[in-house]
Amino acid sequence: MFHPDLALPVACSIAELRDRVSEWRRMNLRIGLVPTMGALHEGHLALVKQALESCDRVLASIFVNPAQFAPDEDFDAYPRTLESDTEKLTTAHAHLVYVPNHREMYPEGFVTTVSMAGPALGLESETRPHFFTGVATVISKLLIQVMPDLAVFGEKDYQQLMVIRQLARDLDLPVEVAAGRTVRETDGLALSSRNVYLSAEERTRAAKLNVILKEFADALHQGAPVAEAQAQARHQAEQTFDHVDYIVVRDAEMLNPLPSGPLKCEARVLAAIKLGKTRLIDNMAAPKA
Amino acid sequence: MFHPDLALPVACSIAELRDRVSEWRRMNLRIGLVPTMGALHEGHLALVKQALESCDRVLASIFVNPAQFAPDEDFDAYPRTLESDTEKLTTAHAHLVYVPNHREMYPEGFVTTVSMAGPALGLESETRPHFFTGVATVISKLLIQVMPDLAVFGEKDYQQLMVIRQLARDLDLPVEVAAGRTVRETDGLALSSRNVYLSAEERTRAAKLNVILKEFADALHQGAPVAEAQAQARHQAEQTFDHVDYIVVRDAEMLNPLPSGPLKCEARVLAAIKLGKTRLIDNMAAPKA
Repeated sequence: MFHPDLALPVACSIAELRDRVSEWRRMNLRIGLVPTMGALHEGHLALVKQALESCDRVLASIFVNPAQFAPDEDFDAYPRTLESDTEKLTTAHAHLVYVPNHREMYPEGFVTTVSMAGPALGLESETRPHFFTGVATVISKLLIQVMPDLAVFGEKDYQQLMVIRQLARDLDLPVEVAAGRTVRETDGLALSSRNVYLSAEERTRAAKLNVILKEFADALHQGAPVAEAQAQARHQAEQTFDHVDYIVVRDAEMLNPLPSGPLKCEARVLAAIKLGKTRLIDNMAAPKA
Repeated sequence: MFHPDLALPVACSIAELRDRVSEWRRMNLRIGLVPTMGALHEGHLALVKQALESCDRVLASIFVNPAQFAPDEDFDAYPRTLESDTEKLTTAHAHLVYVPNHREMYPEGFVTTVSMAGPALGLESETRPHFFTGVATVISKLLIQVMPDLAVFGEKDYQQLMVIRQLARDLDLPVEVAAGRTVRETDGLALSSRNVYLSAEERTRAAKLNVILKEFADALHQGAPVAEAQAQARHQAEQTFDHVDYIVVRDAEMLNPLPSGPLKCEARVLAAIKLGKTRLIDNMAAPKA
């Protein structure tokens, strides 16, 4: 189970994982999980750090989940950087990395899907209808495999965070689902494993996304009507990016659309845009006035 | 948690349940679960007895799961006999009965469904397309709530047993799913909570189901071609019952249809029929020659 050339123990199978986790469980330790698809950046490491604040042991999982990619998406191209990921997790003081292979997660004859309505409807699901079924299925499996006390998910994928919170509630998984703050470049671009796809010119334009969202959230906070602020944000986004999937404000909890007037509840502005072939998402809190 | 007028402790909430189960867990006891919809008969009690053979503590759950009934089915009429159920479980030496109410299992905002292909396709799903999604969702929840070492399901619902085995595998639930032998009346009728719906005349005819299945299985075992034996069984069933949903032979594991010639693998004969408005199911092993 311990790869001598790596500083961090690696579990490749559910059995290895459970051996390690049940040892911790017997020691009555609090266990944190940070599920990732690898290609780790400071955003992921901040989640590990956050988990370490309240947990005795923290493990990160790395699994590029085919079920959450459509055939025309970037599953094959998705960056895979296991060696440097493991180094980063070692430096971040994680205690274990769990790297199941495809056959371990989806053995022959696998036929089960976990699907969700509620916060999973709309937004990402509009253009990626397969996405949250893929996420809910793999996260159900990971949470059942590890049975952590805490699981930390980045707010950068805000809808996913809400979906997973609902999933844990609905399936009675005894886990606290914590939100990790979005880590940004100095120009405000949210860190993402997909940022590596951007050309230099696209990278410059990409930084506008958080600026437009910030102005959108500020306008709402200052009492601008939802319909107006949203139209303005969309106009700006369309002028800046090659395609706009959505740029909207929703209630912060269930992600329901809001009435067209001024904000009356805690809200969230969310956007998905494209630069060339690269799709980026970002979001921010829009506190009511 | 302990109802003074009942001999058996009753847990009504997930929290009460987990308090009790985690106490057992701390004592390192092996825990068995027998999920039921109540209206308990000797068949259920045999499952409790079977669980007690290998477990230190056995709990039965009673929950009439609306998600596995269609609007035109017998959810409202389904027999509810909690007091006598609890007495029976006491006599059967169960250690706990878990009786969650509807709001505990499906709180407001519940939006998650667990659905399956594979063994869930066909047979029961033909006439009850909602059924296995309802079963898979509620059994996922029960298994996650209890996290038993063993769960026992009756072979009378053979397809359900295969579905739940696959579910536990696919979701990595660390539970052994055991099959409980079907308990029968002296004339061979499989015990079922729905037998109470039968009129005296229907009750007499109902006993033919196991006879027809037995002849069907014997014919196959003696080398009769699948197509011929199946047509013969169907003919007999149609002459005896008011409606035949299916009477077929399938491979015993995945429930796939078989080639028309003599049996080449372990198989199972399965039937669903109606007597008046009452739908009965039964099945038997059909060992290859």
